[in-house]
Amino acid sequence: MDTAALWQRYEDWLYYHEGLGLYLDVSRMRFDSELLETLKPKFAQAFKDMEALEQGAIANPDENRMVGHYWLRTPELAPTQELRTEIAQGIEQIETFAQQIHSGAIHPPEAPKFTDILSIGIGGSALGPQFVASALAPDHPPLEIHFIDNTDPAGIDRVLTKIKNRLKSTLVLDTSKSGGTPEPRNGMLEVKQAYESQGLNFARYAVATTMEGSKLDQLAKAEGWLAQFPMYDWVGGRTSELSAVGLLPAALQGIDIRAMLAGAREMDLATRIQDIPNNPAALLALSWYYSGDGQGKKDMVILPYKDSLLLFSRYLQQLIMESLGKEKDLDGNIVHQGIAVYGNKGSTDQHAYVQQLREGVPNFFATFIEVLEDRSGSSIEVQPGITSGDYLAGFLEGTRQALYENQRDSITLTIPQVNARTVGALIALYERAVGFYASLVNINAYHQPGVEAGKKAAASLLNLQTQVMAVLKEVNTPLDIATLAAKAGASEQVEAVYKILRHLEANDRGIIFYGDRSKPSSLQVSATSV
Amino acid sequence: MDTAALWQRYEDWLYYHEGLGLYLDVSRMRFDSELLETLKPKFAQAFKDMEALEQGAIANPDENRMVGHYWLRTPELAPTQELRTEIAQGIEQIETFAQQIHSGAIHPPEAPKFTDILSIGIGGSALGPQFVASALAPDHPPLEIHFIDNTDPAGIDRVLTKIKNRLKSTLVLDTSKSGGTPEPRNGMLEVKQAYESQGLNFARYAVATTMEGSKLDQLAKAEGWLAQFPMYDWVGGRTSELSAVGLLPAALQGIDIRAMLAGAREMDLATRIQDIPNNPAALLALSWYYSGDGQGKKDMVILPYKDSLLLFSRYLQQLIMESLGKEKDLDGNIVHQGIAVYGNKGSTDQHAYVQQLREGVPNFFATFIEVLEDRSGSSIEVQPGITSGDYLAGFLEGTRQALYENQRDSITLTIPQVNARTVGALIALYERAVGFYASLVNINAYHQPGVEAGKKAAASLLNLQTQVMAVLKEVNTPLDIATLAAKAGASEQVEAVYKILRHLEANDRGIIFYGDRSKPSSLQVSATSV
Repeated sequence: MDTAALWQRYEDWLYYHEGLGLYLDVSRMRFDSELLETLKPKFAQAFKDMEALEQGAIANPDENRMVGHYWLRTPELAPTQELRTEIAQGIEQIETFAQQIHSGAIHPPEAPKFTDILSIGIGGSALGPQFVASALAPDHPPLEIHFIDNTDPAGIDRVLTKIKNRLKSTLVLDTSKSGGTPEPRNGMLEVKQAYESQGLNFARYAVATTMEGSKLDQLAKAEGWLAQFPMYDWVGGRTSELSAVGLLPAALQGIDIRAMLAGAREMDLATRIQDIPNNPAALLALSWYYSGDGQGKKDMVILPYKDSLLLFSRYLQQLIMESLGKEKDLDGNIVHQGIAVYGNKGSTDQHAYVQQLREGVPNFFATFIEVLEDRSGSSIEVQPGITSGDYLAGFLEGTRQALYENQRDSITLTIPQVNARTVGALIALYERAVGFYASLVNINAYHQPGVEAGKKAAASLLNLQTQVMAVLKEVNTPLDIATLAAKAGASEQVEAVYKILRHLEANDRGIIFYGDRSKPSSLQVSATSV
Repeated sequence: MDTAALWQRYEDWLYYHEGLGLYLDVSRMRFDSELLETLKPKFAQAFKDMEALEQGAIANPDENRMVGHYWLRTPELAPTQELRTEIAQGIEQIETFAQQIHSGAIHPPEAPKFTDILSIGIGGSALGPQFVASALAPDHPPLEIHFIDNTDPAGIDRVLTKIKNRLKSTLVLDTSKSGGTPEPRNGMLEVKQAYESQGLNFARYAVATTMEGSKLDQLAKAEGWLAQFPMYDWVGGRTSELSAVGLLPAALQGIDIRAMLAGAREMDLATRIQDIPNNPAALLALSWYYSGDGQGKKDMVILPYKDSLLLFSRYLQQLIMESLGKEKDLDGNIVHQGIAVYGNKGSTDQHAYVQQLREGVPNFFATFIEVLEDRSGSSIEVQPGITSGDYLAGFLEGTRQALYENQRDSITLTIPQVNARTVGALIALYERAVGFYASLVNINAYHQPGVEAGKKAAASLLNLQTQVMAVLKEVNTPLDIATLAAKAGASEQVEAVYKILRHLEANDRGIIFYGDRSKPSSLQVSATSV
C-alpha cells in the first residue's frame, strides 16, 4: 500500500473519543472491508448478548449468575433497586472509610495513624490493585501498599520482613470472594501469626473484602475485624477492579476513585454504540478476530510505552486469557479457544524480545499503547530540540513502522496521560472487547473451570501427603516409594508420592531418604522418630 | 501411557546434578527415543560449534567477534593470557570497590557512606541486574538498588522523586556497552541534571561500566567519574550478567558473586558433556526443538513457583527471544526463527492465564521451576500437617499433571533453594541451551540486527522532527499536515509527521492544532510564536 493510501486508511479507521482524548488506530491490522461485512451478523449477536448481559441475563450459565461489572460504574443500569442502592452505598462506604483512615479517626491500637497497607489476595484480587497502584499511586501516598499474592513462604517472609517495624501501623486488606481460596487463606494465617508474634491483636488491623456468608465473612464477624466490604456473586475476579476489590486500596492510596469510575462509565457509553467503526471495543474484537482467524492463532503482544503501565500487560493477560481460554464453546463443542497475551513495556522491550517480533516467528500481533504527555513539567533537551520523551515517541513509531514493513500487524491505542480517568477507561475498554470477542467465537467469558480444577488437584495432592505420612509413621522399616504409594492406596500416584516426599525431606519435615537420588525408584524412605 | 510406564519414563529421563542438587525432568515432553537418534548428528555439530566458540572462534560472524561469556566464570579457558588476567582482575576490582563502598572508604562528598544505588541501563544492562536483585538481594542490603531502564520521562521522575532526599548518598551505575544507546544516555543526562539541581557534582557519584574507548568511557574520563569497569566486545548484553554489568551491582548489594560464578562454572562443566541425556542444556534444547518442530511453533511458558524468581521469566524472554528470533539462518536463507517466551510465577498465574493453558489453545509448552526449600526457618501449619509451602508444591504438581492429561507438554526444573550458586547455575544452563538450540536450527544466536535497526528508525524520526519544526518556524501561516510534510521533504512520511506534531502539541512544545482531531487530514498546524 502506498503512503497516500496508507494515510487515507489511517484516517478512515481512526477512532477518536473526544471526552477522553483517546485514539484507537487499527489501520495496521491488514483486514479489508469485506471482513467487516462478513462479521456484521456475528457482531449483531454480540451487541445483543451484551445488551442482555447488561440487563441482568444469566450470562454465566455454568454458575447460574448474572454478570454485572458494568453496573459498578453505572448503578442505574442494575436490574433491581436493591442492587442500585447497594452499589452506590458501597462506593460511599469506601470513601468514608478511606477518609477515616487518612484522618486517623480510625487508627491502630498503638499508633495515631495507619502508615501501610498489606494487601492479601490472588488473581483478580491482586492484579487489578497491583496495576492500579503502579499506574496511579501518588509519589507520596497516604499509605504505602505491599502485596502478598501467593502461598510462597519465602515470598511472604520477604514482605513481612520489609514492613516488620511498621506492622503496628499496617492495615491488612484481605480479599477473597469465597474465603476458601487457599492462597489468600494461607497468607492471612501467616500474617495473623506475624501480628500475634508482635503481641498485636490482628482483628484490630484487618479488613475483609468478601461475599456475604463466605468463610472469610464468618471469620471476620466472629473475630470482630476492623471493617468489611462486599463482593458480589455477579462480579468475577478479573473484572473486579472497579468493585471494592480495587476501589478500596485505590482510595486508601489517595487515588481518585470517582474519576476511575467516571472514565469507565464514559468508555462504557462509547462501547455500547452498535456500529463497529464507531465502537473502540468492537474494533479491538474485530482486530483480534482477524489476526487469529477467530482461533487465537496469533499471540497478542502488549507494548505500553510508559513505565507506569508496565503491569497493564499482566492485567490484560489475566483478563483476556482467563476469559477466552476455554475448552468448549457455548454449545458444548470442543474448541480450545483463547489468545495468548504477553508484554512488558517499550522502549525497554525493544532491547529484549522485539528483535524476535521484527525478524522472527510471525506468530503475533502487537498493541502499542502511547501516552501523549511525557511528564508533568517541562523536559531538558538531551540534544538540540529533542527530549527523552521524543525518543520514547520515536521508538514507538519506528517500531510500529518496521513491524508493518515486515508484515507484522499492530494496533495503536493513544491516551493523553495516565490518570485515574484514562485508566478507568482502559479497563472498561478491554472488558467490553473481551465480551464482544467471546460472543464472536461463541464462548462463556465469565467462568474459569480450569482454575477450580486446579484447586481440586492441589487438594487431592495434600490429601495424598496426609495419607503417605500416616503410613510412614506406622511402619518401622524404610520402604521404597512404589511400596509406600501402594500402602497409601495410591499406586497410580507413585511419582506424586515421590515429589511429596522430596519436598518434605528438603524442609526437615520428618523424612529421610537412603539411596541414589538420581534413581528415585532406588530410594528407601523412612520417617524420622520425631 | 500407564502410571508404571510413566514412572519409568520419569526415571529414565531424569537428570540430576549432585553438586548443585538440581533436577531436570523432561519426561512430560512426549518425544520418543527416535527423536534422540534423529537429532544426534545435529547435536554432534552443536557440541562442536560450542567447543569452537569456547576456544575463541568468531562465533558472531556479522560483528566479527568472539563470544566469550563462558570465560567469565572460567578465565583459564580464555584464548589469551591477557584476557585471562583481565577477567580475573576485573572480579577482584569489583570486590575491592564494593568493600570500599561498604566500609565508607569511598564515600560521597556530603555523607559518610553511600546508601542507595541508581542503576541506569537497558536490555541486558537492566534485566540481569533486576532479576538478580529480586532473586538474591538480602532483606537489608548494604545499598538499596533502583533502576532507570527506559527513556520515559515520567518513569525517570518517579524514581528520582523516590530517592530525592537520599540523592546525596546515591551511587549511580551507568551501564552502556557502546555509550551510544539513547535510553541510558538520556537517563544519565536526566539524572545528572537532578544531581546538579541539588548542587551536587555528578562525577563524584557516577560509575561507568562500558567498553574502552566508547563515548561513555571518554565522558567518564573527561569528567573524572568515581570509577570505571570494563565491558568486553566478546560479551553480548543478554549474556552479561556474570560480567561487571551484573557482578558490580550484585556485589554492592551484598550478594556473593564468587558463589554466582561458581554455580555457573559447575553448570558449564555439566553442559560440556557431549551426551544428550547427561547434559541438561542439551535436554532443554532437545525439548524445545521437539515442541516447536525446530520452528518455534509453540510458545515457552515459564512458571517459577517462587516469588523471588518472578523476573526470571522476563530475563529468559530476553535471552531466548533476542538470541533465537532471527530472520535468516547462517546460510542466508529466510527462516523467521524464534521461540516466544512469557510467564510470571506460580501459583499466582494459576489464577490468571493458566485457565487458558489447561483448556485453551494448545500453542505452548510449560517450564515449571520448583524450589524445594520453602523458607529459611520452620512453617506454621495452615491445617493439620500442612504448610503454605505444601500448598505451593501441590499446586505445581497438580498443574503439571493436569497439563499432561490434557496433552500439554512440560519441563520441570528443580533446585534446592534460591541462592547465589543456583542462580548462577540457572543463568549458565539457559545460556548453553540457547547456544545448542541455535546450532540445531543453524542461526547466529549472538547478534541482534533488529535492535540496531530500531535505533536507526528512531533516529530517523527524530531527524524528521527537527526538519518539521524548522519548516514550521519559517512559515507564518497554518499548514495542513500533508503540505507540511512535503515542505519538510517527507511526503512519504505524512502519518509520522502527524504523530510527531501530536506528541509535541500535547507537551506544549510550540505547536497549535486547528480543526477536527478525529480527522487528521483536516488539521491545520502552526508554531506558536515562542
